[in-house]
Amino acid sequence: MLQKNPKTTPSRYANQRMSYDRETANAILDEALFCTISYSVDNQPFAIPTAFVRKGKKLYIHGSVGSHFLRQIESGSPVCISIMLVDDLVVAKSAFNHSVNFRSFTLFSNATRIDDYDAKYHFFKELTEKIVPNSWNYLRPMKESEVNKTMLLEFEIEEASVKIRAGEPVDEKEDEALPIWSGLIPIPSKRLAPIADELSKDIPLPEHLK
Amino acid sequence: MLQKNPKTTPSRYANQRMSYDRETANAILDEALFCTISYSVDNQPFAIPTAFVRKGKKLYIHGSVGSHFLRQIESGSPVCISIMLVDDLVVAKSAFNHSVNFRSFTLFSNATRIDDYDAKYHFFKELTEKIVPNSWNYLRPMKESEVNKTMLLEFEIEEASVKIRAGEPVDEKEDEALPIWSGLIPIPSKRLAPIADELSKDIPLPEHLK
Repeated sequence: MLQKNPKTTPSRYANQRMSYDRETANAILDEALFCTISYSVDNQPFAIPTAFVRKGKKLYIHGSVGSHFLRQIESGSPVCISIMLVDDLVVAKSAFNHSVNFRSFTLFSNATRIDDYDAKYHFFKELTEKIVPNSWNYLRPMKESEVNKTMLLEFEIEEASVKIRAGEPVDEKEDEALPIWSGLIPIPSKRLAPIADELSKDIPLPEHLK
Repeated sequence: MLQKNPKTTPSRYANQRMSYDRETANAILDEALFCTISYSVDNQPFAIPTAFVRKGKKLYIHGSVGSHFLRQIESGSPVCISIMLVDDLVVAKSAFNHSVNFRSFTLFSNATRIDDYDAKYHFFKELTEKIVPNSWNYLRPMKESEVNKTMLLEFEIEEASVKIRAGEPVDEKEDEALPIWSGLIPIPSKRLAPIADELSKDIPLPEHLK
């Protein structure tokens, strides 16, 4: 289970929509490609969207060793990592009861910088295979210099929560009989067919991209 | 133009990918439905995904007057509002040069609480029409009590920046001739056909939802 405490407990829907189940969190973390990572400097918040990978009970992000943002958080100052997957627009009979079906994840953690070469190499493989499954062995092999100029940060997934809204609109009792259409508009993020760049016009699309 | 300063200038790609053009920012703000709003309490960052509306040079969010999160920021403590629209996965010939085509927006601002009834009512109309265009007049009219139990917060859009990555993969010169496929995988967030709920099985789908 994830750690339930005042920081990971919201003021609203604390009983209906919250989950601290690790499997539920992992499903969101493994589907989402991007998170927003927030940190503070003198109480001024900064937030950066970035790609990430989950492995076990850890979450990983990377970037250039020259990145100002990574340098700010590598020393272990507190961060909040936020993820939101949007499933449906929830159209009710009144504007007030419109909502959104979503699955969100919030993590409070601190970075640990990982300098081990093999761990960094393996992160790159996991990230690449998350973005394009089964593509790692097809690509030009990673160079040692590429691993070396990348910074890898690790975050423990403990102090975290999941919030989910699913299902149909919830209208006021007195609105239910109104002849006004209500329901869901799904808005999935969907991968379309790959488009070759100029260099690849004559290169066959590999199996893993079909 | 948006305000370029050390806070709105990143350490990397500051010249290639950044924009401070207000029209460019407005296009992102009017397409995106959700933002992530970050604030700090004793240097601990918190981040919440929420819907928003832009009107002129202001951005608006809302919630219950009982929301802990809104109460934290209504007094005007500094916030960072982050938006990311993902367009394509950018598949290069090497894992290292994989990237993402995106349009992101970052705003540093402070909340002003808006208590004017008409302004709140109008916000609800704008938000509803952003989520489902042309639906406001079709819905059960908003009640005074619904407006009254909603808190509306306004943020000036001044200290902000846009970051955009677009176009084809950029491979290393020495990789360009490799017979490895490279290109784009579009991943748009797309609205699918509406699905009626139990109460609306026999209600015709209105024109604005077709």
